[in-house]
Amino acid sequence: MDFSIRAANMEDCKDIARMIMLQVHNKPCCDYLSDMENILVNTSHFSRFHIFDCLLSGHTKIGYALYFYSYSWLGRGIYMEDLYVMPEFRGKGIGKALMSKLGLAAGCSNLKFTVLDWNKPSVDFYVSQGCSDITANFGFHCMRCEGEALEHLAQP
Amino acid sequence: MDFSIRAANMEDCKDIARMIMLQVHNKPCCDYLSDMENILVNTSHFSRFHIFDCLLSGHTKIGYALYFYSYSWLGRGIYMEDLYVMPEFRGKGIGKALMSKLGLAAGCSNLKFTVLDWNKPSVDFYVSQGCSDITANFGFHCMRCEGEALEHLAQP
Repeated sequence: MDFSIRAANMEDCKDIARMIMLQVHNKPCCDYLSDMENILVNTSHFSRFHIFDCLLSGHTKIGYALYFYSYSWLGRGIYMEDLYVMPEFRGKGIGKALMSKLGLAAGCSNLKFTVLDWNKPSVDFYVSQGCSDITANFGFHCMRCEGEALEHLAQP
Repeated sequence: MDFSIRAANMEDCKDIARMIMLQVHNKPCCDYLSDMENILVNTSHFSRFHIFDCLLSGHTKIGYALYFYSYSWLGRGIYMEDLYVMPEFRGKGIGKALMSKLGLAAGCSNLKFTVLDWNKPSVDFYVSQGCSDITANFGFHCMRCEGEALEHLAQP
């Protein structure tokens, strides 16, 4: 299959939002995402907040990788927040091509991301690409604080 | 105990590096960290790479939080890469004060970080601050690609 990978721009937010909505369709917990296009426009690299970059594949926009730069004792890295390829285009090397492009990012020594352990096809794919499960191997657990708990934490 | 929290600057890299080295002392896997001060100088917010910010506590620099801005479907967030308080100053509210300051970051809806599951005192501390273990609760696993595996992944 013929496809190309390029950096996204502001005009792509609508299509990226469309692909995000494909993933959360009918999940009530994700109601707030109905405004996804505006969330993307307001938090993307190409806007004033400078939070993430995005790579797109295909002329018709069939997959994307959302990422931002990270930092750890390993030095400068890439945090891949989201990798998605539309189901009908999987198995054609698009996900690998998106990750490969991320891996090339200048001066970065590591690529990090999370995956849900019940999503076996994704876990298998990432392991086949040489990624290591540092939760299983070393015991790293992901923690999150949000909503009322975050408001409470933020009180002096 | 009287302490204050402030943003770090370039001149603080030496002391932050000192506190990082306290944590990795005698761990052979961390030999590359001997150049930590330069790593910090070259990747910090206050330098050209704009990767992380840092909060420091105390006039004598007894703790720090390293963080960067993140992005997810939850919107703009904070990723806390590292939180440290020197052992002899623990239990005095310094870690909580550092996290509280992070929680205040304008326009951020969530705070994320990782913790090693065998580090029970840290896990208990974070849970007591209202943070949730999304590995245990939802199955999120941390993945990483680095070294030769990353070089291989980056090949077109």
